[in-house]
Amino acid sequence: MLSKEIYSRRRATLIEKMAQTAPQGSRGIALFIGNAEAPAQYRDNCYKWRQESTWIYYFGIDQPLYSAIIDLDEAKTTIYADDFTIDDIIWMGPQPSVASRAADTGADASAPAAALAQAVSTALASGRKVHFLPPTRYYNTLVLRDLLGKDAKPSTELVDAVVSMRLLKEQCEIELIDNACLLGYEMHSIGRDSIIPGIIEQEIVGKMEGHTLSNGWGVSFPIILTQHGETLHNHSHDKVIEPGKLMVIDAGAENNEHYASDFTRTYPTGGKFTTRQREIYQIVVDCNELAFSMTRPGITYREVHLATAAKMLEGLSAVGLVHGDIDEMVAAGVAGLFQPHGLGHNMGIDVHDMEDLGEDRVGYDPDQKRVSQLGLGSLRMARRLVPGHVVTDEPGIYFVPALIDQWKRDGINRQYIDFARLEGYYDFGGIRLEDDVLVTPEGARHLGPKRLPIQPADVEEAMAKAEWRR
Amino acid sequence: MLSKEIYSRRRATLIEKMAQTAPQGSRGIALFIGNAEAPAQYRDNCYKWRQESTWIYYFGIDQPLYSAIIDLDEAKTTIYADDFTIDDIIWMGPQPSVASRAADTGADASAPAAALAQAVSTALASGRKVHFLPPTRYYNTLVLRDLLGKDAKPSTELVDAVVSMRLLKEQCEIELIDNACLLGYEMHSIGRDSIIPGIIEQEIVGKMEGHTLSNGWGVSFPIILTQHGETLHNHSHDKVIEPGKLMVIDAGAENNEHYASDFTRTYPTGGKFTTRQREIYQIVVDCNELAFSMTRPGITYREVHLATAAKMLEGLSAVGLVHGDIDEMVAAGVAGLFQPHGLGHNMGIDVHDMEDLGEDRVGYDPDQKRVSQLGLGSLRMARRLVPGHVVTDEPGIYFVPALIDQWKRDGINRQYIDFARLEGYYDFGGIRLEDDVLVTPEGARHLGPKRLPIQPADVEEAMAKAEWRR
Repeated sequence: MLSKEIYSRRRATLIEKMAQTAPQGSRGIALFIGNAEAPAQYRDNCYKWRQESTWIYYFGIDQPLYSAIIDLDEAKTTIYADDFTIDDIIWMGPQPSVASRAADTGADASAPAAALAQAVSTALASGRKVHFLPPTRYYNTLVLRDLLGKDAKPSTELVDAVVSMRLLKEQCEIELIDNACLLGYEMHSIGRDSIIPGIIEQEIVGKMEGHTLSNGWGVSFPIILTQHGETLHNHSHDKVIEPGKLMVIDAGAENNEHYASDFTRTYPTGGKFTTRQREIYQIVVDCNELAFSMTRPGITYREVHLATAAKMLEGLSAVGLVHGDIDEMVAAGVAGLFQPHGLGHNMGIDVHDMEDLGEDRVGYDPDQKRVSQLGLGSLRMARRLVPGHVVTDEPGIYFVPALIDQWKRDGINRQYIDFARLEGYYDFGGIRLEDDVLVTPEGARHLGPKRLPIQPADVEEAMAKAEWRR
Repeated sequence: MLSKEIYSRRRATLIEKMAQTAPQGSRGIALFIGNAEAPAQYRDNCYKWRQESTWIYYFGIDQPLYSAIIDLDEAKTTIYADDFTIDDIIWMGPQPSVASRAADTGADASAPAAALAQAVSTALASGRKVHFLPPTRYYNTLVLRDLLGKDAKPSTELVDAVVSMRLLKEQCEIELIDNACLLGYEMHSIGRDSIIPGIIEQEIVGKMEGHTLSNGWGVSFPIILTQHGETLHNHSHDKVIEPGKLMVIDAGAENNEHYASDFTRTYPTGGKFTTRQREIYQIVVDCNELAFSMTRPGITYREVHLATAAKMLEGLSAVGLVHGDIDEMVAAGVAGLFQPHGLGHNMGIDVHDMEDLGEDRVGYDPDQKRVSQLGLGSLRMARRLVPGHVVTDEPGIYFVPALIDQWKRDGINRQYIDFARLEGYYDFGGIRLEDDVLVTPEGARHLGPKRLPIQPADVEEAMAKAEWRR
């Protein structure tokens, strides 16, 4: 946990922001439901405990079955939870009281869990507005239904206030993200050094995840590690590693303070890129580097996305897979065939920060409209950049047979695409290269003390140094 | 997945058992809701996928958002789920159709997910009984509420039929449990060999869990690894390892076929037991061995539990911590102060097998009544043993200051207990020793190809061989 001053200050800021949405006396209450344990096999056998992210930001108490009400009219925070019984102590050891945990987060009061329903009923009965955020887990959905009924709607005012704060990382948060990035760097280095033809992918996954568990909370999302990188979120790891393929490793660590990192690298499974692999790989490196060089306050991340799309189409033109005017192709969405996802997303306590508060409310300025075009339509972060934004820079090129077939069959953008030549890439797989980037007053910097090798020669050199090769 | 013949046979047996509960034409339908992905941070960032256990047993399809109806009158199985769209294929790769997965499990038909609500409504409208099991995850609770209303009650007939089948392990299941036990043996060996004074407990936890992820599904429950073994389910791992303490490691692996293992060993952190530690440790070994030697068809596990309680009290008498007639002390529940839990539980696809179907319905014969006494009251498996039962044998002795203080204050069993002498054990911690045991026609055998060292001399010898000591 951080100091109680930090949580108190954050809640005070939230109260101020909410004060702008309604006059004193009619602001109502903001209701926050922390997570319960998440059952895996049965109710008492749970996945590793993880607190709800916005709760972590405003309250920090890293315990299940806590909830809170911030009275927006009276600027008062009450924490609701139950103290441990003697049975709990036998099974789980002595624990601080709810009152002392409430004091640790600078709250004004604490009360038993059952008092929450009473407090909400009282607020509703006196016609007060009850603000709450869209629930993430099914547990939180159930609790909110029981408290407010099935038809209650999350508060857009509260969402916007929370998003405006969590988007801009404080100095103490940046330090924690740098720390999560170091752990991510280490797990990726272990992964890269474990690419040994003949072993099963799962072996590497376990080593990487084990390292994050030894040194942090664990992975910030399930590891993607695949020789079929054209499948963007491939979570099966049952293939034997064969030389001559490309292996995409998209993985991040969450540290014990629950901040995330998220990196992707793509490796030639045999340690050396083929000429054809290197040609496409270099295009992706160039897009990654271009995006980083453009990232600075004042530009929108949508512009950066489109600039990398142009760069990618230039590269693919040189290889002969597309042809035509670059600007026309960008406008027509040709890049979406090769990169059907966006350039990046916000990152913080969540690896896709605040995704459950609504991708558009989080990633788009009020004057920006999301389009439906493949690729650009999946851009999760389009906003005009300001210092404190933390974004990923993750261009990729994939050859997805099902998608190519669809475009060919439907004649989509056929004037720009050499479908005959593309057939030679059906077995190519995919490449993605991802860094985590902080927007600074001057421009941007890579997060984490060290950057994973990305230039093809550096990648090959790093792979050659793996212990098993010696 | 196993062969479709196995799933078809299991469902046919279930239909037969349910046929005994009502005449043909009034048996109704049995509704099974498979799991959805479990969100960790946000809806699209989930914990590692794990299917619902009873679903695994009867259907095997290891995919989210599947459900099924077994028509008990017509002996017909229908699988409900949606096929992948082109978007799903881009993100998650090509996948077999629902129809082909339904064929893999030997089902009679398949239908889109939306047809499930229609099928349930039709059944309800025509007055048919809808049997379902108690839901485990909050997701399943939500789905059942939407389908059947908030007040629908799980079917005790279905629970009893399922329990009667899953309790008795088939040969193919025993092989899978042996395999999970080998993985558990390996993870424990890594744990034991990583007990290095000066490191943080979490480092060991990550190594152990990493091994299970490299070679299986992962851990069968969150690892307990603590120098405060007196806290039975201690999940914090933030302490530095200090020589002179006892470290309890209670951990199990789940293999890729989703069968569990569950072992506990207790280690002297410095590699050698002190005289006082060894004295108590030997009592627990003797209890573990006694329980194993008594485990055979015909005896109840409640009797085995009580015999180990007597053995434990004999040992504690010899140390001078209790005094009096052993049988009287067993009846008075004195052992519960030292072992406030039961001797063991059923194990299979769940590590506490079927716990969510109701501990008493799973662990007690109809003629057995659970008592409320501390220790015996926590016995999860009391049944008369028959070949095919898989149980844990896990006696323990703990010195829980809060509990000792409570008994002393309330004068509980004061005629038997030397509270003054017990004060010398407030810093002792706890010891638990657990094996997994199969009841065979002849008696019992330890599950897994190898047994973890348990005798104190063997434990010390194994610890001395750890690589870091060489």
